[in-house]
Amino acid sequence: MITPELLNQFAAIVGESHAIRNPVEMAGYMKEQRDLWMGRSPLVLRPGSTNEISTIMKLATATKTPIIPQSGNTGLVGGGVPFETGNEVLLSLDRMTKILDVDAADNTMTVQAGAILKSVQDAAGNAGRLFPLSLASEGSCRIGGNLSTNAGGLNVLAYGNARDLCLGLEVVLPDGRIWDGLRKLRKDNTGYDLKNMFIGAEGTLGIITAAVLKLYPKPCTRETAFIALPSPQAAVDLLSLMREMSGNRVVAFELMPRIGMDFTVKHMAIADPLAERSPWYALGELADPPEGCFEKILEVALERGLVTDATLAQSETQRQALWNIREKMPESQKHEGGSIKHDVSVPVSKIPVFIAEATQAVNKFMPEARVMSFGHMGDGNMHFNVTQPVGMDKKKYLDCWNSMNTAVFAVVQKFGGSISAEHGIGRLKIGHMPEIKSAVELGMMRDLKRLYDPLNIMNPGKVVPL
Amino acid sequence: MITPELLNQFAAIVGESHAIRNPVEMAGYMKEQRDLWMGRSPLVLRPGSTNEISTIMKLATATKTPIIPQSGNTGLVGGGVPFETGNEVLLSLDRMTKILDVDAADNTMTVQAGAILKSVQDAAGNAGRLFPLSLASEGSCRIGGNLSTNAGGLNVLAYGNARDLCLGLEVVLPDGRIWDGLRKLRKDNTGYDLKNMFIGAEGTLGIITAAVLKLYPKPCTRETAFIALPSPQAAVDLLSLMREMSGNRVVAFELMPRIGMDFTVKHMAIADPLAERSPWYALGELADPPEGCFEKILEVALERGLVTDATLAQSETQRQALWNIREKMPESQKHEGGSIKHDVSVPVSKIPVFIAEATQAVNKFMPEARVMSFGHMGDGNMHFNVTQPVGMDKKKYLDCWNSMNTAVFAVVQKFGGSISAEHGIGRLKIGHMPEIKSAVELGMMRDLKRLYDPLNIMNPGKVVPL
Repeated sequence: MITPELLNQFAAIVGESHAIRNPVEMAGYMKEQRDLWMGRSPLVLRPGSTNEISTIMKLATATKTPIIPQSGNTGLVGGGVPFETGNEVLLSLDRMTKILDVDAADNTMTVQAGAILKSVQDAAGNAGRLFPLSLASEGSCRIGGNLSTNAGGLNVLAYGNARDLCLGLEVVLPDGRIWDGLRKLRKDNTGYDLKNMFIGAEGTLGIITAAVLKLYPKPCTRETAFIALPSPQAAVDLLSLMREMSGNRVVAFELMPRIGMDFTVKHMAIADPLAERSPWYALGELADPPEGCFEKILEVALERGLVTDATLAQSETQRQALWNIREKMPESQKHEGGSIKHDVSVPVSKIPVFIAEATQAVNKFMPEARVMSFGHMGDGNMHFNVTQPVGMDKKKYLDCWNSMNTAVFAVVQKFGGSISAEHGIGRLKIGHMPEIKSAVELGMMRDLKRLYDPLNIMNPGKVVPL
Repeated sequence: MITPELLNQFAAIVGESHAIRNPVEMAGYMKEQRDLWMGRSPLVLRPGSTNEISTIMKLATATKTPIIPQSGNTGLVGGGVPFETGNEVLLSLDRMTKILDVDAADNTMTVQAGAILKSVQDAAGNAGRLFPLSLASEGSCRIGGNLSTNAGGLNVLAYGNARDLCLGLEVVLPDGRIWDGLRKLRKDNTGYDLKNMFIGAEGTLGIITAAVLKLYPKPCTRETAFIALPSPQAAVDLLSLMREMSGNRVVAFELMPRIGMDFTVKHMAIADPLAERSPWYALGELADPPEGCFEKILEVALERGLVTDATLAQSETQRQALWNIREKMPESQKHEGGSIKHDVSVPVSKIPVFIAEATQAVNKFMPEARVMSFGHMGDGNMHFNVTQPVGMDKKKYLDCWNSMNTAVFAVVQKFGGSISAEHGIGRLKIGHMPEIKSAVELGMMRDLKRLYDPLNIMNPGKVVPL
């Protein structure tokens, strides 16, 4: 147990005005956003500097106090909230929001870990550059969390995951040492790559406190189309055609099933953009393509039977309207009752057979459940979500979460896929780690955890089962 | 010392016909290609499978025998050759050259570590795809070595370093365990990133035995120009303009000084492509740009005084001829006597001031030495090579290697740069590690080395000073 004296010591590091002890005031830090968990903590610390975080971790090490780092608290696997024990101190990055430097000539920017993703994007935009990471929670998620979870989102196809957008890091280690790896270099082969160990580690090896990010030129033009397709295989073939015919200018390729359109039209006040119903849809986008490129691609695709109908955005307003369909789709599901979710990936070419077999597996498990498989097909990443049968009790349905997962994950593994393509492991999926990792790989991860965090005080109980 | 019995045990693992004990036959494996070192070893093992390598490492662990993994032996820092002690066994990957799988639909290929880079490129090309890693030694270097050294080369600007081109790895650990991380996924957030630890580790943490590589669509068109410029600053500004006006279609941007042109014209039977002499030149290339894009860029650049003259390749033959100038430039230096080399990087915007100050530092150190700074300016990577004064004794000049390094590296560090942008640390630069790394960073690297290789048998004495 943490003594009141120790809490005072921790609070003194950040100053009493930045320490929260009142359960009502700290509720927002404790609640997992999908309502899966409500953590408990005696203290929320809101440090204002890397040095304060270092001092906190030194005290945590000296007293073996578990520390839970939290960024925007928008994660989807419970990695950023404490357990219910009340023995863990929460450390929030939400005061460390500075954009330290934007360098258009170098195409880099340096930011504190608590900077909100939207403000990072805006700072890049104001300098005439693009920071391409973009995801649903961008108005409230913070870049430190994006890096700690190796966030994906809508532009991975062209620009990669958060990992690929980072040149350098500053990290406070569990023992309080500060690693200054804030380099702006595109090439640096001087020893082991330390940066990538912390990216995607979900705060279990250290606390990311600042980062150097890559910037890109802003695309001058975009062509965006909403496309009706007969099947996922047609979507895979269309993506391949788009890549070849555009000179690799594809920046987004999202797949959506008819049931998703039905939900979205019904619940989200959105009109069907195409006249006829189609079993599948794709939203594709090209950046800076040769003029009229998308039109030519669609002509060839129509001839080949890959596409049955399509509409090309003729203005930015129309483009936003098409994207709005995709962006509203996840929310539409809530209106149909409970939903059991799978954020999975397989090699892109396996998407069609994965959807077919995973749907079969779900139907076998629960014939009336409604599969809605949509998402970032261009990255092989499907949000394979399953909506409850009409009329079933929601709670009773959600109680099947783990069994449904087991059925779907078996198909994922059959095709060499990942059971967490972009959301991470956190608390939600840690129990699956021994099933999906070899003994060698799990051993290597445990060794790394023990190396950096021998006392197991850094976000314990997340990601790697010890 | 290694006993004859132990050598027999090692040889039995691969079979006598794949074990070399004759010093004459093994000379090619012992010689560092710049003639800086000639290693010694009682035995060269040429295993044919990952399992054989695993068995070798188990025996090496049991007997504390140092193992030196070697790929194409084209490295430039002595990382792939044994020391002169004769106590180390060399393990060559040169029999494990299979292209295991090329998957055009997934844009991936899976290869054994000993596959020659050129054959990897060709296999991708035959499947209608591009594997973009390209460097001078591509006809003899092997992909395992490219990954172990995180090779750079000519296309980093558009496609990244070797690290960025790898989706999955298979690695044999020093204790013989095999880590199978051969995944084909674009997104996989299930635990710590292990892959990037081995990439760039120069065989000091384990032996890369196979890899899954990323493929790209082949560019449909390329525009290539050879450009005369007044200064490195003009080159930086031109690159920025090219990026903005082409929609980020720049795939190469090489900077060359007049002295490099003089050497190349004089010694390499190459004609000056432009009528007037210029202090600096750039070779720029766009892939799949909007039609006539490069011409428009050059017009604007001429108006702004960034460019004084340029020639655009009108055919593939002309394009090859322009690239040939750049490719022959390093060799041209050999005809001018000894050359002290620096493979360094700084943030791109710092290139002009770096060249100015580093040249000053060299001139102060040795007024008659001839600076030839050329290379991958688009990545901030300069090959800052210094040719000996005319008439000086070559050996006497090369004896100044370390002092010259010290003068240049001080300028590199002043601008937050790297003393090894793409060649690595190996044996050549290990002595500089304590100067360029913080105690924290060096400590973290040592910890990793001790974690994976507690007996220090995996390419010992390279990369990280213990």
